[in-house]
Amino acid sequence: MTPINKISTPELKTITRQFLETAPDIYMPGVSVDTVIFGFHDAKLKVLLSYVGDPPYYGLPGGFVGKDEDLDDAALRILQERTGFENIYLDQFYTSGKKDRSNEKILKDLIEKVIGKGAEINWFRQRFVSICYYALIDDTKVKPSSEVIFGEFKWCDINKIPKLIFDHSLIIKKALATLRSDLDNKLVGSNLMSETFTMNELQRLYEAVYQQKLVRTNFQRKMLSLGVLERLEKQYNGKSHKAPYLYRFIRKKRILRHTL
Amino acid sequence: MTPINKISTPELKTITRQFLETAPDIYMPGVSVDTVIFGFHDAKLKVLLSYVGDPPYYGLPGGFVGKDEDLDDAALRILQERTGFENIYLDQFYTSGKKDRSNEKILKDLIEKVIGKGAEINWFRQRFVSICYYALIDDTKVKPSSEVIFGEFKWCDINKIPKLIFDHSLIIKKALATLRSDLDNKLVGSNLMSETFTMNELQRLYEAVYQQKLVRTNFQRKMLSLGVLERLEKQYNGKSHKAPYLYRFIRKKRILRHTL
Repeated sequence: MTPINKISTPELKTITRQFLETAPDIYMPGVSVDTVIFGFHDAKLKVLLSYVGDPPYYGLPGGFVGKDEDLDDAALRILQERTGFENIYLDQFYTSGKKDRSNEKILKDLIEKVIGKGAEINWFRQRFVSICYYALIDDTKVKPSSEVIFGEFKWCDINKIPKLIFDHSLIIKKALATLRSDLDNKLVGSNLMSETFTMNELQRLYEAVYQQKLVRTNFQRKMLSLGVLERLEKQYNGKSHKAPYLYRFIRKKRILRHTL
Repeated sequence: MTPINKISTPELKTITRQFLETAPDIYMPGVSVDTVIFGFHDAKLKVLLSYVGDPPYYGLPGGFVGKDEDLDDAALRILQERTGFENIYLDQFYTSGKKDRSNEKILKDLIEKVIGKGAEINWFRQRFVSICYYALIDDTKVKPSSEVIFGEFKWCDINKIPKLIFDHSLIIKKALATLRSDLDNKLVGSNLMSETFTMNELQRLYEAVYQQKLVRTNFQRKMLSLGVLERLEKQYNGKSHKAPYLYRFIRKKRILRHTL
């Protein structure tokens, strides 16, 4: 894991103090948003983590819902603030609401690391129900910016996720299950794949998401049976008669799981 | 639609007044729960609606999350209070959070119908993000009890749903889409079907949920391919050699949508 950006400690301190002063006036009480941003590139699936401190606390990028802001708009705004991405295909997949999902001790220690002892942390002390969204993007195209408390970001291999604060590990687990279940739907309309791609490229993505090798012929049959891929004319360039077919997604077509 | 129960107006008034006085101390602010309870019996799909007044306001049975109560527990408690059912397979499927999803005018009129003009309705005036759950049950086994504000309940044919308050129509639409998408999963572990059933009985359920006739042979092939049904030995009773096979669900087995 390589850090992507770094915000200076005094700057983070100012941002967080300011946030704590104004948050109760700006945001809905008791409601937070967490995002699981999956990054795919070069056959590897990663997830975006924010962190602070040394030894660091790791967590999911998140935020809060403006008092006069639609929930989905809040999620998009938070995603945009964190990644610089707009118009992402963002899916709500779960709302986490166990009464003890937060942890007072960790919270206190975490915020003290940023703004020092004796900080007024009442905003964070309240119980939050967190509405969780996920996105799947090309992680090479993302420029995460800083966040309140968590000053830094890392892309983390899906197999090497460190211990996370609160229930964030569970949230990632649920997000991955949703991604696996909805991957076909998720890709149609996403900007993850290039406009055109080979069956082999598509298979590499599925293998990364499912974390297992797939049999080429089975994969191809299954993909074609979904009815969401359009096969393009082969572009003979004179060099090779073995050039693979290119495909593209038939956009905006819903895949019916039940074609009874 | 036939009303199931009826609570007297003075009683409803007392319950609702009491609720409004104590709610801020008992429940989390800003967070509500709505339930879409699908009832299936005799080849018909229905949904449970609560209502009050004449002409009536219709809405989904709902409630709030105790300050010291897990979100899922709150949903189960609300379902139990409304239906008398316990240990129901209840699924969270959506969180509704548009800033203007509630409607002040309807709200005021609705509550005035119950407890008279000049009522203190601040609790209901706040913005709620509603976490939505759905269940699928045998509607002949349900004995709904009364609810704050909404004193009465009706089972309503899925095709004849009246105008509902707030965004409850949208919530039902999303619940139905989820039910259609997850019906196979939903049935495994549900107490909707008898322990054993015929393929024909199962088909009638799918037809009611999808609101369309299905081809018997296709349906049977599809169901068997899911690997969640166990075919039992035919019970020859001497009367008929045409007795249909009986099936039962292989419980606790997850259906993998992607068997790549």
